[in-house]
Formats: sequence, C-alpha cells, structure tokens
Amino acid sequence: MEAAMTESDRDYIQSIERGFAVLLAFDAQRPNPTLAELATEAGLSRPAVRRILLTLQKLGYVAGAGGRWSLTPRVLSIGQHYSESHALIEAAMPRLLEVAEKTQESASLGVLDGADVVYAARVPVRRIMSINVSVGTRVPAYATSMGRALLAWAPADVVERVVAESTFQKLGPETIGTAAELERELAKVREQGFALTSEELEKGLISLAAPVRDAGGTVVGVVACSTSSARNTPAQFREQAVPCVLAAAAALSSDMGYAG
Amino acid sequence: MEAAMTESDRDYIQSIERGFAVLLAFDAQRPNPTLAELATEAGLSRPAVRRILLTLQKLGYVAGAGGRWSLTPRVLSIGQHYSESHALIEAAMPRLLEVAEKTQESASLGVLDGADVVYAARVPVRRIMSINVSVGTRVPAYATSMGRALLAWAPADVVERVVAESTFQKLGPETIGTAAELERELAKVREQGFALTSEELEKGLISLAAPVRDAGGTVVGVVACSTSSARNTPAQFREQAVPCVLAAAAALSSDMGYAG
Repeated sequence: MEAAMTESDRDYIQSIERGFAVLLAFDAQRPNPTLAELATEAGLSRPAVRRILLTLQKLGYVAGAGGRWSLTPRVLSIGQHYSESHALIEAAMPRLLEVAEKTQESASLGVLDGADVVYAARVPVRRIMSINVSVGTRVPAYATSMGRALLAWAPADVVERVVAESTFQKLGPETIGTAAELERELAKVREQGFALTSEELEKGLISLAAPVRDAGGTVVGVVACSTSSARNTPAQFREQAVPCVLAAAAALSSDMGYAG
Repeated sequence: MEAAMTESDRDYIQSIERGFAVLLAFDAQRPNPTLAELATEAGLSRPAVRRILLTLQKLGYVAGAGGRWSLTPRVLSIGQHYSESHALIEAAMPRLLEVAEKTQESASLGVLDGADVVYAARVPVRRIMSINVSVGTRVPAYATSMGRALLAWAPADVVERVVAESTFQKLGPETIGTAAELERELAKVREQGFALTSEELEKGLISLAAPVRDAGGTVVGVVACSTSSARNTPAQFREQAVPCVLAAAAALSSDMGYAG
C-alpha cells in the first residue's frame, strides 16, 4: 500500500494511515489483542500504537480492558455509509434473497476494488458446511467467477491494471496461472454471459457470477452464487443455478436503470 | 463526541479524528459530495479536508473524479474485522434466517453501543414495503424493542448511563417520554422475557426483541423481528412471531455457551 514518498505526497497525513493500520490489525484470529500484538501486526512502535489506541478509544471505535483491546460495533458505521450511499446494495438484497431461496445456496453481490472483488452484500443460507465470508471480505479477481464477470466487459485499461496487480498464485487445484489464460476465460465469459469457476479459489468451491449493469451499460457489480463440490458437480450447479443467477442479474440491472 | 481537552488527552491524535469525520460525512443523501460539501458537513476547513481526502484516496478508501468524491468498497473492510472477530454475528446468521423464513419478516441481531442499538447482522425479506436498515445502522435504545431487551437485564450503571444520554424525543405516535416510563417498560420486559414496541421509533413500525446471553449469562445481543402495522396488529405479530424469536434467541444463547 505504501509507495516511495514523492513531491506530490506532501499532503499525506501519516497518522491517518497508522490509525487504519491499527484498526485492521484486529481480526478473527486476534479479536482481543494486546498492545504488543497490535504493534507487531501493524508494524508500528508500541508508543505509537498506544497513542492511536487511546485516540480510537476516545472516538468509540475500540475498547480496552485488562490489557486487551477489541473493536466496538461503532466500526460498522464506517462501512454503513458506503452501503447507504450505494443504491446497488439496497436493490440487490431482494434479488439475492430470490437466488438463495431458489438455489438453497448463499448469494452475493460483488464489486471490483483494485485487483480484488469485495463482497458488498450477501444472503447466507443455513447449512452445516457453508461458505464463510462476510460483507467486506476480499478475494482476488483473477481466481473467482465474480472477478471474471466483472472484468469480462471492463475497459482494457482496467483489465490491464488487474492483470498487472494479480499474483496468479495457485490457490486451488484448478487455479489459472497466467494472464493469457485469464484473457481466454474472459472471452468465454463474454460469449456465455456468465462466469463459472470450479476449485480455483479453493478446493471444493464452485462459483457462478453474472454481470449487473447500470443505466449506461457499465458493469457495476455481479450477482454470484457458490456451492460445494460435495453437493454439486460444476455441470449440475450450472444447470440448477445459471437461469436464476442470470435472471437476478438482469432484474438488478433493470432496477439500476439498464434498458437492455 | 468531543469533550474539552485535558491533561490526559495529550496522546490524542486529532488527524485520526478528522479522518473519520470526513469518512462519516459521506451518506445516502450525499453519496458524491464536493470538497466544499464535505468541509461543511465535517466542520473542517477546505485545506484540511483536501489533505485528508488525498490521504484517504492514497489509502484506497475514497475516490475522486470530476470534483466529486465517493467512498470505495474498501471501507467495508473496517467493519468486516469487527464482524469476523465476533462469533456472535456468525452464529446469529442461521438463527436470523430461521426467523425470517418463519415470519416472512426481516430479522436482525442488535448490540448496544452507548445509548444506541447497532444492527450487527440482518436478514432482510423481500417485500414492496420493507424496513430499510443496513448493518451498522444506529437507533436509540430507549425507543426500540431491541434497546429494551438489551437494557432489561443490564447492570444498573449501564441503564443509568443510557438514560442520561437519551433524549426521549417523540419519534413516533407512541414513543415513551421519560426515564420512569422506560423503567416500567424494562420491568415488563423482564417479566415477559421479550420486548415489544409499536409505533415508538416510527409511525407504523412494530418490533419484537429477545435477549441473547453468553456463557456467563450476560445479555450480549438481541434477536429482533419487525413488521408494519399495515400487515399486522401488535397482538397478531406477538402471536405469530414471539415463539420463533424466543426460540432463535434461546438457540443462539446456547450456541454462545449459555447453559440456561
């Protein structure tokens, strides 16, 4: 995230960067860290982290007790302002519910952020073995059906940037490994109108995504649905879920003013 | 949020406060503000807001184009770390789905933050006239069934603090107006085991909430369900939804290790 400082960076406020670094150092593996743990994770000195924690505590974003720190629900309000200001997320919820009801699999809305896809909305389905992601989770675009449906109709410079920033790391048994393979996959997505990936992001995970367009025809998000290879083959999932994911994406596009 | 600075505030980092003030100045009414609009909303000078925006842009939280600014989906990652680190939210999702399926009304998990209840998880239901709140939305505890179910079993000092911070503003036709009325309502909640409010937060809104306890018996959240007076009377909603909201809250308490 940090590049070398240049003339144009004179306005950069490092305290703000550090404040976020400390907030992001809390996670599922470390929900109640000590100051020392946060300093290590954020790569900052203990005195710096101490001042930041006291500031965040005063602002109500963290709470300290017994030498351990935790995030408060107030941090949710930051993401909420994104959700509130995005009509797409609000419009997506009923469409995702429809997909989840029909497929009995979790349904999501994904949007592109850099070389990642971010889950912007999600309707989970109750299962013993479910796909555990929450709103805000990031996954690499190159290895996911969501990413491919977002990139297939994107301008060339966006695709180039994502390719340049992608590691093409082998995350599952079937992950594609090169930019050329990604380009071929994107052509296939354009042709069939949706993206389907199997065991690329993770072993056993099969995913499906279809593009959502705004009034101007730009792809602004994807409706996605995932299953486990323990429940479906890719062909079964395709037959079962493609019509309803496509219908949901088309309905959401229409909600957003896309005339088709 | 700001109190007078004292000796103990020497460690306070004002840039961090200002960074959040700018992020929170984006909302549904102003999704693409100008620098001047953000300065007015955040109560900061334009040069200060400009530096903060350039910093937030470099960190990937905002994007600027054509003199207007918007939040990026990266802001969702901040709240995600709260969600990820809270087993309660993850455990709540299947229980909320059950409530939403059975009642065909939206179901939520609420937690207390100061004198407000924050929606920490939510399963919406598809309806023309639905209740539009997203995760992170804050509502005053005194005027909601969620707040009352959170306060009914809370320590006296917590109740006192919430009462002191509550406005008792009349938000709907039936909003209670005094601390004494709230105390009476809390006694009723303790007796019946759940809270039911009608037209207190807003005209036409009927809500129901039941407490979720952790392994130590502390109420750490509430399972809630809301309807419209256009679809139900309070008595109908009580009959229809109370058993399943109570069952969901009990199951979630058990998930959290509460032995009853």
